[in-house]
Amino acid sequence: MIPPEAAKASDQVRADLDRLLPVLEPRLLTPFRLGEAMRLAEGMRYSLEAGGKRVRPVLCLLAAESVGGGLESALPGAIALEYVHTYSLIHDDLPAMDDDDLRRGRPTNHKVYGEGHAILAGDGLLTEAFAVLAASGRADAVALLAEAAGWRGMVGGQALDLEGEALTASGTDFGWEHLQTIHRLKTGALLRASVELGGLLGGADSIQQASLRAYGEAIGLAFQIQDDILDATSDAATLGKRAGKDQGRGKITYPSLLGLDGARRALQEATERALCHLPSLPNPSSLQAWARYLAERIA
Amino acid sequence: MIPPEAAKASDQVRADLDRLLPVLEPRLLTPFRLGEAMRLAEGMRYSLEAGGKRVRPVLCLLAAESVGGGLESALPGAIALEYVHTYSLIHDDLPAMDDDDLRRGRPTNHKVYGEGHAILAGDGLLTEAFAVLAASGRADAVALLAEAAGWRGMVGGQALDLEGEALTASGTDFGWEHLQTIHRLKTGALLRASVELGGLLGGADSIQQASLRAYGEAIGLAFQIQDDILDATSDAATLGKRAGKDQGRGKITYPSLLGLDGARRALQEATERALCHLPSLPNPSSLQAWARYLAERIA
Repeated sequence: MIPPEAAKASDQVRADLDRLLPVLEPRLLTPFRLGEAMRLAEGMRYSLEAGGKRVRPVLCLLAAESVGGGLESALPGAIALEYVHTYSLIHDDLPAMDDDDLRRGRPTNHKVYGEGHAILAGDGLLTEAFAVLAASGRADAVALLAEAAGWRGMVGGQALDLEGEALTASGTDFGWEHLQTIHRLKTGALLRASVELGGLLGGADSIQQASLRAYGEAIGLAFQIQDDILDATSDAATLGKRAGKDQGRGKITYPSLLGLDGARRALQEATERALCHLPSLPNPSSLQAWARYLAERIA
Repeated sequence: MIPPEAAKASDQVRADLDRLLPVLEPRLLTPFRLGEAMRLAEGMRYSLEAGGKRVRPVLCLLAAESVGGGLESALPGAIALEYVHTYSLIHDDLPAMDDDDLRRGRPTNHKVYGEGHAILAGDGLLTEAFAVLAASGRADAVALLAEAAGWRGMVGGQALDLEGEALTASGTDFGWEHLQTIHRLKTGALLRASVELGGLLGGADSIQQASLRAYGEAIGLAFQIQDDILDATSDAATLGKRAGKDQGRGKITYPSLLGLDGARRALQEATERALCHLPSLPNPSSLQAWARYLAERIA
């Protein structure tokens, strides 16, 4: 039985998606219509069109609304976030990284366009993220995204994750703290930045911005725990990507470290920590619903 | 015998390097001292330390000075340009792209750190370029660099170049115009942006900025022609990278299209076109010397 709170959250999430995606989707593909490097543009569109729930841009837009800001002000941030996220998936799927053939139920970018073009499609999307954000005139927003996405954030987390695999294979043991560092950087930094970018562009004051930051940090952690739980318990048809791949490679995950029940408790705690930062915001209800939804999602 | 003009140019170039590199070099490595992803930072430093003449940052600084701007104002642009250039070399050298083992006389990044880390080192440098530029508060500078470096510029040129190799291998013929498009994007866009960024950060008015843009476009072309000539006529010890590699792969080059003499004439023309835009600037002498130097360099 679905608890009544979850059902409510899910209605709110569906309503947010119905309202926001029709604004967001056409804008995501707009820059890549005309240009000289058409095959490259096609590759970038291929991965953007693979879709997904657009969690990061939607969180950015909702964070702007949560502090009373308008959608339009936060749209450049939302678009930039999805470009950064999509580039990171393209590069992560490469043979030299996670070596995946399937992503969101379709062949990965390099399977269709070749490795060279996939690397360039990623580079192009990352660069375009900053172009879009800079066009809004907000150097502070560029700085925030670059910090979260770069070597001190997402890219650094991916590097530690890559090294971790090699070390685990050689028999080195990792602890809880190291796992948290990897995830805080690899997945957490960009999710937190999604919420912060929305606050910044939506005109949050410094107290509201601190609440959004803390909320973003907590849902980032919750998101990763749920990812690990799904990887351990779900199948490829549901996930749209290879399941059990992390465990299969001896990668450390929350379930492998805490057990499945322990991981579920950690997920619950992180979600509640996220929720406790919201009540002081002018319009907290969507962000509340999304925190619950992200912890309950099945893919 | 060295013509007296070239000797003069070369003295000026040496004086500029002696003055600018001690300011630039320590700043290039500063961001990568402390962090959680230390091996990644080490890989980024490895490629930054490989050095070279720092053509792009130096052009940026000299362009700022040519319109009366100070060094400090243009330094974030100079650093960002070298990060973008270095990332592009790391990614271009990957097996899926140009597959090179040697760069500036040292093993390429992926030969030392592995492909996965090399991809991430490139991603990290590209992202840090925008972080540095954004920290100066100039969204217009971020926009300029992102446009030049992205899929409509450098990345697009690299994609066309990759496709060109495949098409040449299949027997398709390319003309002069297609070659120019590739180079205008692949090498030209970032060189032009180097000069434009210096002008922008140095406070150029719109007429000065148009002169700098035209100068940058012309030296970008000259640079590529000279690169092709050197690839065809030099050896690996002098170049610090594999020589004859473009011709060896049947890649179209200026010498293969125009003959060696024709390529030298085109180089001369482009250099003179660059020079004719400078006399109206307050301090044109360094940019004049560099245009001559880039056409006469031997590596």
